[in-house]
Amino acid sequence: MKRQTKPALNNERLAEIYRAAAQIILRKGYDATSVNDIANAVGMTKAGLYHYINGKKELLFDIMNFGLDELEGEVVTPAYSIADSSARLRFIIANHARLVTRGEGAITILVDEITALTPAQNRKITRRKREHFDRLREVLNQLKAEGKLADVDTTAATFSLLGMINWLSRWFRQDGNLTEEQVANEIAKIALHGLLRPESRAAQRGLQVVKK
Amino acid sequence: MKRQTKPALNNERLAEIYRAAAQIILRKGYDATSVNDIANAVGMTKAGLYHYINGKKELLFDIMNFGLDELEGEVVTPAYSIADSSARLRFIIANHARLVTRGEGAITILVDEITALTPAQNRKITRRKREHFDRLREVLNQLKAEGKLADVDTTAATFSLLGMINWLSRWFRQDGNLTEEQVANEIAKIALHGLLRPESRAAQRGLQVVKK
Repeated sequence: MKRQTKPALNNERLAEIYRAAAQIILRKGYDATSVNDIANAVGMTKAGLYHYINGKKELLFDIMNFGLDELEGEVVTPAYSIADSSARLRFIIANHARLVTRGEGAITILVDEITALTPAQNRKITRRKREHFDRLREVLNQLKAEGKLADVDTTAATFSLLGMINWLSRWFRQDGNLTEEQVANEIAKIALHGLLRPESRAAQRGLQVVKK
Repeated sequence: MKRQTKPALNNERLAEIYRAAAQIILRKGYDATSVNDIANAVGMTKAGLYHYINGKKELLFDIMNFGLDELEGEVVTPAYSIADSSARLRFIIANHARLVTRGEGAITILVDEITALTPAQNRKITRRKREHFDRLREVLNQLKAEGKLADVDTTAATFSLLGMINWLSRWFRQDGNLTEEQVANEIAKIALHGLLRPESRAAQRGLQVVKK
């Protein structure tokens, strides 16, 4: 069977396949998940699915890169156009939280299931995650340099932020009491309350969430 | 081979087996881990190991219960003897964090790998985790009733706390820049700063970590 070149990442069908596959892999485990399971979930034949993917292991790697691309494209890159560092932090937290609650939750978790990857793929994903961590910590270091950060260790604070946000993927339910926006708002509130000095926080009311 | 009754949970050898097994299962995945792998890691023969365990699936279930027993015995139950609710919250956060950094990190994560369990085991672990969540949220609800809590949703706040603490198991390294106590202290500081009103926080300086 001739395979198409992998479509560009803004292809919504591909995104749908990634989300569905991530959910199945998380539920059944990578080894127990077949390409057929994934095809069934998105209402395609196995042959049809192979127009979009190049195999199961490659799919797992692609899903992880997709999640990291979204994080970079929708959260980190736009954040750098925000001059005020407290506002930038709020933007990053709220929009990363929003990404997780929007249905990328399974993808978020899957990024940590790197044992199924080849060593080379594992290194690439680990490096990208590390880069993201470093950039987030840089935002906190800048706040510290400006005297706006509470007296906290920026490494522990960065991991705490990521923990709060990534944990969302385990508990947030679309049919729960809190809407996506409320949850993103609560997470940002708790995190900024926890990390910023009161006088820096006061200037940062109002949530800035990118609407999709 | 005749199997002994499972030793009591205060058996340090058994705890060592649980910690080693949790680490291997996390690294290799449950399916790919053999009882031999676990025996090798603790320097026992397979037959010797079977004096302590009743099989791989039962072991996974036992490890999860062990982790939840420790959480209950060392963190939640002692916390109830602390009358002041802010001090109680600080005790819970710092000691739960300390439990994770002390080497139970792998066990902490494993508690979420419930797909390998039987449905009945899965229900039991899920119920125990839910009970823990409810008790933690109850502490926050009490703080709210006393006017000590910042303006946050207690459900989102409880999950945020658990996210920060459980995420520790993914990043804390014994040979890293921060000691176990420093990390527990930082987590407690960020969390209390994030959740309590400033006037309630001021009274709660100083970390209360149970020494083992």
